[in-house]
Amino acid sequence: MQLAQAAALRALIESQPIAALATLHRGKPAVSMVPYAVLPADAGFVVHVSRLATHTADMLASPDVALLIVASPGSAPSLRELPRVSIQGQAHPLQPAAPETAVARERYLARFPDSAEIFGFADFSLFVITPRSARFVGGFANARAVQADELRAILSRVS
Amino acid sequence: MQLAQAAALRALIESQPIAALATLHRGKPAVSMVPYAVLPADAGFVVHVSRLATHTADMLASPDVALLIVASPGSAPSLRELPRVSIQGQAHPLQPAAPETAVARERYLARFPDSAEIFGFADFSLFVITPRSARFVGGFANARAVQADELRAILSRVS
Repeated sequence: MQLAQAAALRALIESQPIAALATLHRGKPAVSMVPYAVLPADAGFVVHVSRLATHTADMLASPDVALLIVASPGSAPSLRELPRVSIQGQAHPLQPAAPETAVARERYLARFPDSAEIFGFADFSLFVITPRSARFVGGFANARAVQADELRAILSRVS
Repeated sequence: MQLAQAAALRALIESQPIAALATLHRGKPAVSMVPYAVLPADAGFVVHVSRLATHTADMLASPDVALLIVASPGSAPSLRELPRVSIQGQAHPLQPAAPETAVARERYLARFPDSAEIFGFADFSLFVITPRSARFVGGFANARAVQADELRAILSRVS
């Protein structure tokens, strides 16, 4: 991946607070909104979800998920040129006492300080989404597949 | 559905130009960005997609899809309160010569005049997405299921 593309993909991921999360719901696609943070050391994305929510049950039943992150409309000359990345990956829940959970919570709260109170709710938990592959559209005639190792390298530099 | 909720859902659909489209890709969820328009007479949504795009092949192979429309970040006090609607439905391609295709093209071009040139490309076609059910989050503690007939009634009033 060219340096300029990698920088644009990193900027997109850093700039947006929410993603569309696609899950498999009783064999059919479903899609919902999730705020996300990026884990250190290329560990992927972290989301904080309610056990009462359909997407949480979906991820537990079927760990294959996809994320879409789109730049703000207005940041490109036309909608079709809007920078966006579609990521396929696998989701797994973090156990409250696991060492990685503390790191994930810290990263999540650094990005979403308002979520602190929700961490006291028993029905919320953190899920990690580990990317398997991605497709990045950087603009007009600027789309390309992103391999897992390329994406991990980019995520490791997300601040 | 209360009138205020129906009005808020209609305003959300009218205000946003793009949706996240979840499809089934080789048995796994995938998600991509699509500009959308609303068809008259509660016929659903219309999208204009390239036959070269993965989501198009996905819809032809498996018509079950989902759409997510999210209000602009910043339009709610917190991200979790952002108005959004998740819609489950079925997609089918419109044949170029079908009577409904002319209406769909007109609606699409009324919303996206810049797309006129793309309608000359042989590899682009219109797909209708017919809603089956939906879930609308209007804000804090304001989430509810929307039945297909309720959603159709709202879509029929989208301008």
